[in-house]
Amino acid sequence: MAASAPSSSSGGDPDPNSTNLRPPSSNYDWSGVAHGCTRKLGMKICGFLQKNNNVDDKSGIVGFFNDQQPSKSIFTQDNERESRLRRTETDFSNLYARDLLPAKNGEECTIQFLLEVVDILTNYVRKTFDRSTKVLDFHHPHQLLEGIEGFNLELCDQPESLEQILVDCRDTLKYGVRTGHPRFFNQLSSGLDIMGLAGEWLTSTANTNMFTYEIAPVFVLMEQLTLKKMREIIGWPNGEGDGIFSPGGAVSNMYSVMVARYKHYPEVKIKGMAAVPRLVLFTSEHSHYSIKKASAALGFGTENLILLSTDERGRVIPADLEAKVIDAKQKGFVPMFVNATGGSTVYGAFDPINEIADICEKYNLWLHVDGAWGGGLLMSRKHRHKLNGIERANSVTWNPHKMMGVPLQCSAILVREKGLLQGCNSMCAGYLFQQDKQYDVTYDTGDKAIQCGRHVDIFKFWLMWKSKGTIGFEKHIDRCLELSEYLYHKIKNREGYEIVFKGEPQHTNVCFWYIPPSLRGLPDGPERRERLHKVAPKIKAMMMECGTTMVGYQPQGDKVNFFRMVVSNPAATRSDIDFLIDEIERLGQDL
Amino acid sequence: MAASAPSSSSGGDPDPNSTNLRPPSSNYDWSGVAHGCTRKLGMKICGFLQKNNNVDDKSGIVGFFNDQQPSKSIFTQDNERESRLRRTETDFSNLYARDLLPAKNGEECTIQFLLEVVDILTNYVRKTFDRSTKVLDFHHPHQLLEGIEGFNLELCDQPESLEQILVDCRDTLKYGVRTGHPRFFNQLSSGLDIMGLAGEWLTSTANTNMFTYEIAPVFVLMEQLTLKKMREIIGWPNGEGDGIFSPGGAVSNMYSVMVARYKHYPEVKIKGMAAVPRLVLFTSEHSHYSIKKASAALGFGTENLILLSTDERGRVIPADLEAKVIDAKQKGFVPMFVNATGGSTVYGAFDPINEIADICEKYNLWLHVDGAWGGGLLMSRKHRHKLNGIERANSVTWNPHKMMGVPLQCSAILVREKGLLQGCNSMCAGYLFQQDKQYDVTYDTGDKAIQCGRHVDIFKFWLMWKSKGTIGFEKHIDRCLELSEYLYHKIKNREGYEIVFKGEPQHTNVCFWYIPPSLRGLPDGPERRERLHKVAPKIKAMMMECGTTMVGYQPQGDKVNFFRMVVSNPAATRSDIDFLIDEIERLGQDL
Repeated sequence: MAASAPSSSSGGDPDPNSTNLRPPSSNYDWSGVAHGCTRKLGMKICGFLQKNNNVDDKSGIVGFFNDQQPSKSIFTQDNERESRLRRTETDFSNLYARDLLPAKNGEECTIQFLLEVVDILTNYVRKTFDRSTKVLDFHHPHQLLEGIEGFNLELCDQPESLEQILVDCRDTLKYGVRTGHPRFFNQLSSGLDIMGLAGEWLTSTANTNMFTYEIAPVFVLMEQLTLKKMREIIGWPNGEGDGIFSPGGAVSNMYSVMVARYKHYPEVKIKGMAAVPRLVLFTSEHSHYSIKKASAALGFGTENLILLSTDERGRVIPADLEAKVIDAKQKGFVPMFVNATGGSTVYGAFDPINEIADICEKYNLWLHVDGAWGGGLLMSRKHRHKLNGIERANSVTWNPHKMMGVPLQCSAILVREKGLLQGCNSMCAGYLFQQDKQYDVTYDTGDKAIQCGRHVDIFKFWLMWKSKGTIGFEKHIDRCLELSEYLYHKIKNREGYEIVFKGEPQHTNVCFWYIPPSLRGLPDGPERRERLHKVAPKIKAMMMECGTTMVGYQPQGDKVNFFRMVVSNPAATRSDIDFLIDEIERLGQDL
Repeated sequence: MAASAPSSSSGGDPDPNSTNLRPPSSNYDWSGVAHGCTRKLGMKICGFLQKNNNVDDKSGIVGFFNDQQPSKSIFTQDNERESRLRRTETDFSNLYARDLLPAKNGEECTIQFLLEVVDILTNYVRKTFDRSTKVLDFHHPHQLLEGIEGFNLELCDQPESLEQILVDCRDTLKYGVRTGHPRFFNQLSSGLDIMGLAGEWLTSTANTNMFTYEIAPVFVLMEQLTLKKMREIIGWPNGEGDGIFSPGGAVSNMYSVMVARYKHYPEVKIKGMAAVPRLVLFTSEHSHYSIKKASAALGFGTENLILLSTDERGRVIPADLEAKVIDAKQKGFVPMFVNATGGSTVYGAFDPINEIADICEKYNLWLHVDGAWGGGLLMSRKHRHKLNGIERANSVTWNPHKMMGVPLQCSAILVREKGLLQGCNSMCAGYLFQQDKQYDVTYDTGDKAIQCGRHVDIFKFWLMWKSKGTIGFEKHIDRCLELSEYLYHKIKNREGYEIVFKGEPQHTNVCFWYIPPSLRGLPDGPERRERLHKVAPKIKAMMMECGTTMVGYQPQGDKVNFFRMVVSNPAATRSDIDFLIDEIERLGQDL
């Protein structure tokens, strides 16, 4: 088994196990010292906390600090301490998961192991924000599968030592992608929020489940209060209504279609889709593909999802909606549901909600706003007007894990009418949702979900909100929008660039072609289009192989591949935008 | 804002911010010292790692260790160090989330803050495994909402200080439930696996998304390899097939119904349920309610889910399945899907898969095995025979987050035929699943999911498997089964107990009534039943209020409330089983 020999380590830290003497030379690697410090902390905490420790026997502990002369330098002292530490280090190679808690006397080992892991993680955090590090160290699947420098992904019958496990952790991070790096612009979710990270660490440690108040009292209440706050911000009177956190925007959007169907045809729950007329749904041709996934999964069929035309900037044309509603009715279909997108995936377009809401009211259609990407703008007094009319929606998807920088996963489905989620999904399982508990069981909200067990997604978000305040989110959003304005103005008239749609973007999405010098003289036509289509993928591939930055690209309709730049990363600055443009030009100039 | 004053702390640690002098008295609280140690570690790491630190200026660092005389005790030294620490501590009350990375010079603050959080978490871990602590500190929803000891759940416009955030973290844990406590038996998921915890911490730090190889190369490969291993263990030739990790067993079961429908009627994806005959599904009356949720959500309707009778122990009677299939066909319905449960939620029953598979083959029905709870037994050479025939299933749900002790969420849906998941769910979004990338895009598996973004659930599981080996999981499972055998034999003939179903349980579920002395003389009849029905809820309520242990109860069919004991917690021992029985008797004797 190649991996049993500890080998590479993330980012070039010296292997602490091989460092015995640490001369105070100016070339000394300080991160190694810090590494040693964490180990020492492990020793200290473990020593102090060890349950059966004889508290009166202070000699050992005193010695821990006292075995040094004032004349000695820190390094000598360090070496003296190392004699304790070395024992511990040796231990990791002879220690296994079975030696951790709940093993007898496993506390010391457990705390030390966790602190070692934290040391790896805090190193990773530091590097994530350090612009001199790469965004990624790209390897092809077959390379990783073959095992690079002993990093063996295969699972075995026999256990690995804790030492090897720590190496595996370093390698996992080493060959991954730093999505929090200031120059990672590849997805709508980017950045590494420290408070969110702390929240996730706590959530994992609490390791509970959202289905009942009984086993998640604090988290269940946090979810309720946060959802109420979100509904207030949407503008529903007194924040009334309902909602739940779901495993992502696609599932939130699926909820919206389910709830709409339940509202209009509650009999579907029992009798199925056979019991209702042919229902049709409407969404923009620029909307997220999850609406299509939902119509396939829930039994509507994708051909009963009618795509709406958009203007040049990707916004639904309300007149087209009305025409298609009338047309569907004339064909004998029953229009039921309209999705308006609040921040489309590629263009960042906001559909005109008020005008769509007028049509929905006129024809008695459920109005859902997919604000997975754009919902965050509700937190900004400057930008929330882009979602004007959202208070008229029957349901809203809003992913704090996108524009608000909350770690994945964190997505909410919010519903204006209370009781629908419960009515639609509840099955009243007796073993979980007993009605004869000693507390108010209306707080057992699990039966509203299509899930049974449900991960705690709320705490990191709640903690971020507490720590930043509403105004903190607002600042973050305003800043991201400013950065994309900066980018837009920078490339608008720059040689070698073409903007995909005219005018300032509504969201942080800036869509553009980079035209290499060799294509600049070519007239528009099939040859130019064909060659231009290949430019973005080539530049992107080189970016990834260099590891310098990452940005998305795609075709859209009849438009060939273009870059879609988005900013949601709080670490990004103008210099990173400049870097991206320089990098595109550096890599693309000879194409 | 009541919460702005730091107040309570988890489990009685002294508030480190108010501790200036630490006399070496015998009453000294050692956990406080350890707390101080972590702070010091923070100082040290931060000091060393501070990017702009003047490496040549060793005086400060040397002084950090050298400003002490050999004659001084540890406590005096501690106080001297406190002078540095106090500054830092003061800082937390004047520091805010905005001071953390990516803030300029935010590194020191970030690392210190994270280490403070880790200190809180490792304290929580220690207490979780400590039988002298409570399982929970119960409060009613209104009490927590009112704000206990300043713990304010409400969200505000203005930010809180980092000091207050740390208090919030402690309070969140304090008022939660220790699901890893050796005496927590309330759910199928229990225990706190240290390796899984480390894996989750790393996952949160990497904060990426499973949709493409591009941004989750290592995790995507880990998922593929692990799913293959699981298929091998199921017994599918060469581990061929397909699969994906989903947000819980309910969603995995929903996948199975979707894929079955796609296999039999691929046109549903486009045309919807209106295009197909009336399809019916079959599942045991003891099966998990998620099958019913799926039939409602996907447009079948719950009345088209036919419930199968079981024997006295909760296992499907195959003849009943065949009779109901024939009956449905005679009524003109089309039988399509059968769910066999491998480890039912309440009784822990295993349906006879081979006999069910015979019928499924005869009538061309999709066979799904819901092994959410029982799938883990496949890892045990001693117990896997209970799932004999699973290799004949078309799909399998298997939740490592239940019997295998992996932290929530970790659930897999495995499908024997490759390509169905993709065919059923793919929508080929151009912005995400570009076909002109530089690497082998068959590794971009995201389009198989009903989700778009997908949380990384694989790493903790992979790390646990690496660290324990297959044999480690086997040992854990055998041990849990032994413990429930122990419980079964302990109460089988004990006065005051009645077992709900005869014979040794197949899984770790032991279902029983406790009969208080006052009911023991009563003849069976409405009065006894009515009174017995109230016993378990009363005992459970008292358990929760005492905080000593937690175990589930429910009615089932015509059976009044009974306890369902399950063991999946690796920390549980025979003494904890004994404790549970003692506690039930202590609390129930006067009912």
